[in-house]
Amino acid sequence: MRVRKIFLIGLGAGDPDHLTLQAAKAIGRTDVFFLLDDGEPRASLADLRERIVRGYSKPSRRTVAGRSPADSQAAERMLAEHLKEDETGSFLVWGDPTLYDLSPAILEEVLARGTVEFEYEVIPGISSVSALAAKHRVPLNRFQVMTGRQLAEGWPEGVDELVVLHDEQQAFAAHPDADIFWGAYVGTPDEILRSGRVSEVAGDIAKTRADARTEHGWILDTYLLRRPRAH
Amino acid sequence: MRVRKIFLIGLGAGDPDHLTLQAAKAIGRTDVFFLLDDGEPRASLADLRERIVRGYSKPSRRTVAGRSPADSQAAERMLAEHLKEDETGSFLVWGDPTLYDLSPAILEEVLARGTVEFEYEVIPGISSVSALAAKHRVPLNRFQVMTGRQLAEGWPEGVDELVVLHDEQQAFAAHPDADIFWGAYVGTPDEILRSGRVSEVAGDIAKTRADARTEHGWILDTYLLRRPRAH
Ligand SMILES: C[S@@+](CC[C@H](N)C(=O)[O-])C[C@H]1O[C@@H](n2cnc3c(N)ncnc32)[C@H](O)[C@@H]1O
Ligand SMILES: C[S@@+](CC[C@H](N)C(=O)[O-])C[C@H]1O[C@@H](n2cnc3c(N)ncnc32)[C@H](O)[C@@H]1O
Repeated sequence: MRVRKIFLIGLGAGDPDHLTLQAAKAIGRTDVFFLLDDGEPRASLADLRERIVRGYSKPSRRTVAGRSPADSQAAERMLAEHLKEDETGSFLVWGDPTLYDLSPAILEEVLARGTVEFEYEVIPGISSVSALAAKHRVPLNRFQVMTGRQLAEGWPEGVDELVVLHDEQQAFAAHPDADIFWGAYVGTPDEILRSGRVSEVAGDIAKTRADARTEHGWILDTYLLRRPRAH
Repeated sequence: MRVRKIFLIGLGAGDPDHLTLQAAKAIGRTDVFFLLDDGEPRASLADLRERIVRGYSKPSRRTVAGRSPADSQAAERMLAEHLKEDETGSFLVWGDPTLYDLSPAILEEVLARGTVEFEYEVIPGISSVSALAAKHRVPLNRFQVMTGRQLAEGWPEGVDELVVLHDEQQAFAAHPDADIFWGAYVGTPDEILRSGRVSEVAGDIAKTRADARTEHGWILDTYLLRRPRAH
């Protein structure tokens, strides 16, 4: 029985030393790397990913570059075209592949369609959430992970700690009494960290974020928001 | 200026290959390892931790074994007694040090007391949450992390995905229509995984958990709970 093998590998949050031994081993067993992007050019991340591939892969490995498949049919065509039946293919994902990433759902759909057979395994990675909390040395207990758009609908009931991804609108500004622990490009040489009471640091964060985005042409940022404890 | 350096190192969730390169490097720079436990004897985890230390540390390193300090005064005494002023000490934590762990708060308190001076750094690790989601290949989007006791007070408003740690009472049983993705000893050779509709698998999970705890003398388990999507 020859069956394709797929690894969905978490690389960590932008620091090459976030790589786990498990990820390095999976990279070493890979015949074909699918180096995909979402259409946003982020040259320094793409370079880092190629450096990681060069560092841990076997010389005979091939790479396929392109746009992330938008649906399971596009993903199916990509696998059928580039991966032979007894080969191992890997998708490399920033952070942790199960956190706010479409790949696991797309691969499950391809499997469910049943046209291309394969086994697949997810290799966990250091998420941007873990990387941010480590840099700020902030413990997380009961907390909720959500997007900026969801936060804009209101602070959820019953939870004092929020982790917010994908916030284009600085939704934290509506919570001046909260403490914020913010980070952009976390784990990379361009990392920027800010923290403090929202009322005191919101303006600085907004300006820092706008300047950084202008300078780099793109930004990835995340924050923890903590409701002040009742006394 | 000689100042003590402390690393709080996440080892990952019980699989030695969860170790990151960053963690291995920090282990290699460590003079004194504080190998602490919470009083629950978990021989296989303690063995694994010692194997990791042996594998990546320098020959001259010392180890201090004992009970986790319950407060910042005990931690302060431990540091003052065992770590010389120009040395590096490391605390090794399972999973990710910022997820449901008291160490960052205790170290911040020791710093705030100001009696023992040190610098410290948190090295993120693969959490049991990431490890569990990877094994079940379940994507997490908006979700809340909480304890079993908190779940027993009710499913929080506005969130369909929960991750539950520290559940001694099988609080998931009150949600028969939800899907559960359960794991015990995740990442270790003793790993057990179960998933399905709660109404169909709750009995099996309860029995499997009780049997495993009897066999090993201890258990660590976690689960994801997903509310069925409205149609
Ligand atoms: C599609 S999600 C993927 C998250 C990823 N799977 C992870 O584990 O970090 C992308 C969002 O993650 C956050 N993010 C990813 N990498 C980041 C980094 N290095 N620094 C700060 N935020 C980051 C940003 O909020 C971004 O909008
Ligand atoms: C004090 S918390 C520490 C969590 C840890 N810092 C982490 O990142 O996984 C301990 C709880 O984590 C969960 N846990 C830790 N390790 C686990 C493992 N290997 N498998 C399943 N659950 C685990 C259990 O719910 C346990 O009660």
